[in-house]
Amino acid sequence: MLDLAFLGCGGSMPIPGRYLSSLLIRYEGRLILIDCGEGTQVSMKQVGWGLRAIDVILISHLHGDHIYGLPGLLATIRNSERTEPITIIGPKGIKRMMESILVLAPYLSYEIIILENPSEFTYLENMKIKTEKLNHTAPCLGYSFNIERNRKFDVVKAKENKVPKKIWSVLQNEEEALYDGVVYTPEQVLGKERKGLKLSYIADTRPTKTLPEFVKGSDLLITEGTYGDDEDVEKAIRNKHLTFKEAAEIAVHGEVSELLLTHFSPSILEPEEYIENARVVFKNSSVAHDHLYRSLRFSDDSDDE
Amino acid sequence: MLDLAFLGCGGSMPIPGRYLSSLLIRYEGRLILIDCGEGTQVSMKQVGWGLRAIDVILISHLHGDHIYGLPGLLATIRNSERTEPITIIGPKGIKRMMESILVLAPYLSYEIIILENPSEFTYLENMKIKTEKLNHTAPCLGYSFNIERNRKFDVVKAKENKVPKKIWSVLQNEEEALYDGVVYTPEQVLGKERKGLKLSYIADTRPTKTLPEFVKGSDLLITEGTYGDDEDVEKAIRNKHLTFKEAAEIAVHGEVSELLLTHFSPSILEPEEYIENARVVFKNSSVAHDHLYRSLRFSDDSDDE
Repeated sequence: MLDLAFLGCGGSMPIPGRYLSSLLIRYEGRLILIDCGEGTQVSMKQVGWGLRAIDVILISHLHGDHIYGLPGLLATIRNSERTEPITIIGPKGIKRMMESILVLAPYLSYEIIILENPSEFTYLENMKIKTEKLNHTAPCLGYSFNIERNRKFDVVKAKENKVPKKIWSVLQNEEEALYDGVVYTPEQVLGKERKGLKLSYIADTRPTKTLPEFVKGSDLLITEGTYGDDEDVEKAIRNKHLTFKEAAEIAVHGEVSELLLTHFSPSILEPEEYIENARVVFKNSSVAHDHLYRSLRFSDDSDDE
Repeated sequence: MLDLAFLGCGGSMPIPGRYLSSLLIRYEGRLILIDCGEGTQVSMKQVGWGLRAIDVILISHLHGDHIYGLPGLLATIRNSERTEPITIIGPKGIKRMMESILVLAPYLSYEIIILENPSEFTYLENMKIKTEKLNHTAPCLGYSFNIERNRKFDVVKAKENKVPKKIWSVLQNEEEALYDGVVYTPEQVLGKERKGLKLSYIADTRPTKTLPEFVKGSDLLITEGTYGDDEDVEKAIRNKHLTFKEAAEIAVHGEVSELLLTHFSPSILEPEEYIENARVVFKNSSVAHDHLYRSLRFSDDSDDE
């Protein structure tokens, strides 16, 4: 299960009543933060999931509305006397940018590990974080979070198939085993396939050819939706952003289950007013708002916990 | 006349409902900003005095709660297409710190002029900004704003004293003039002395020997008051801050007219509860709060405007 908290949904600059776009992901008791504009740490305090459990900070790109909260957040985490390292991942340029941020926030009590432009990154063993190059006015990465699930060991099935106990653990790891001259297969001990979870987070970008494939089959797709009005498509092209409608087209082609829009232009006071522009293209579209909470559950969660 | 807006009154880190200590001063239609923690630009938007009229940003010291809002503010001012330079004044180290801040906020549309550790600075010809070295855990400057007022030209008096019109302008500039063999003095044409204004802003510090002299006679003294409880004096000594009581003692020895306390520890939820600890020492003490507005008027303002 993944818990999500939208820390903010604004783009460009912080305005009263709307924090800058940032998402907090809670998974197995740990936290991943995506983007960190000015004020993100204040919004995090309101959410109340704490700061100390942040292991990874993913930065989509190096524009101010996505990074100016970093010095303050890192300093506040220092005040919590954290000692475990924090991994910061971002596009080309993140290492150089972090040098300046660490001048502003010196004497941290923990190590900062920086991964610049990785294509894939494994978190907590069973979550794969993949990246996608987006098309914005600065190098920008999209992220997908892929949780695969192993098939359960089925004791009844194993006994029915007379599989010797000694090789159960080998078969559970989905490897075949030879025992007393007989070949045993994982199929003889494992339950049915279990669907994992996929979340995609696409920050500032124009549509790209490969985006639908990157977000393919997401249980939830979160994209920027800087402009609500279809007529703002020229602004979107000029500033390399998406309209709600364009975001919905990515959702359709990516065959995702749900679309949530965020990163609204400061000129949009009520994003909800434009949601039909997305829904005519992709029905299950909504606008996010600051402090919207969502949980993504495994489809067979009920018999799993 | 000076208009003041307290943009925030918190110390250490931003918390929901309290911005970090920062003061906006409006004088002759222009703005001076003192300190700029994370979120200051959002508070400025709520105040509504605009961003474009900022000529000077005074930084007390280089701790995060006083500077982390700078990249965002400078970037937002850039978006307003400002072209006039902005002068940033701060203690030793401000030049180096600004190098990092300008990496985060590049491509500004205006020049940044940095004055490191000046003892005095003249603003708009008739305001003298003076600095005072404070005693904190990092180099820290206190600031005073001194507006002197010229005496008014008194036409009736000049005529009574039979001062020739040709030398009126010389005498008005408080210089003597020799005309047709007679020496005329400014006293013959000028009205009574007019009291100016003095505002002092003292950020993070312990009491120092010279502070009372520096703030002497201020119409308004604003000081940090990190701790309200007298019993927190040991914490104040350790972290190099003031208790309310210690701030009030500076007000007494500085013979100021009024004391306003700010920069409260996040552990103080209701600073008002501790105000008596200041008032037993200096009666005209109050706690500031976010978006407190004050105007300082010349004592003879009524006949001046």
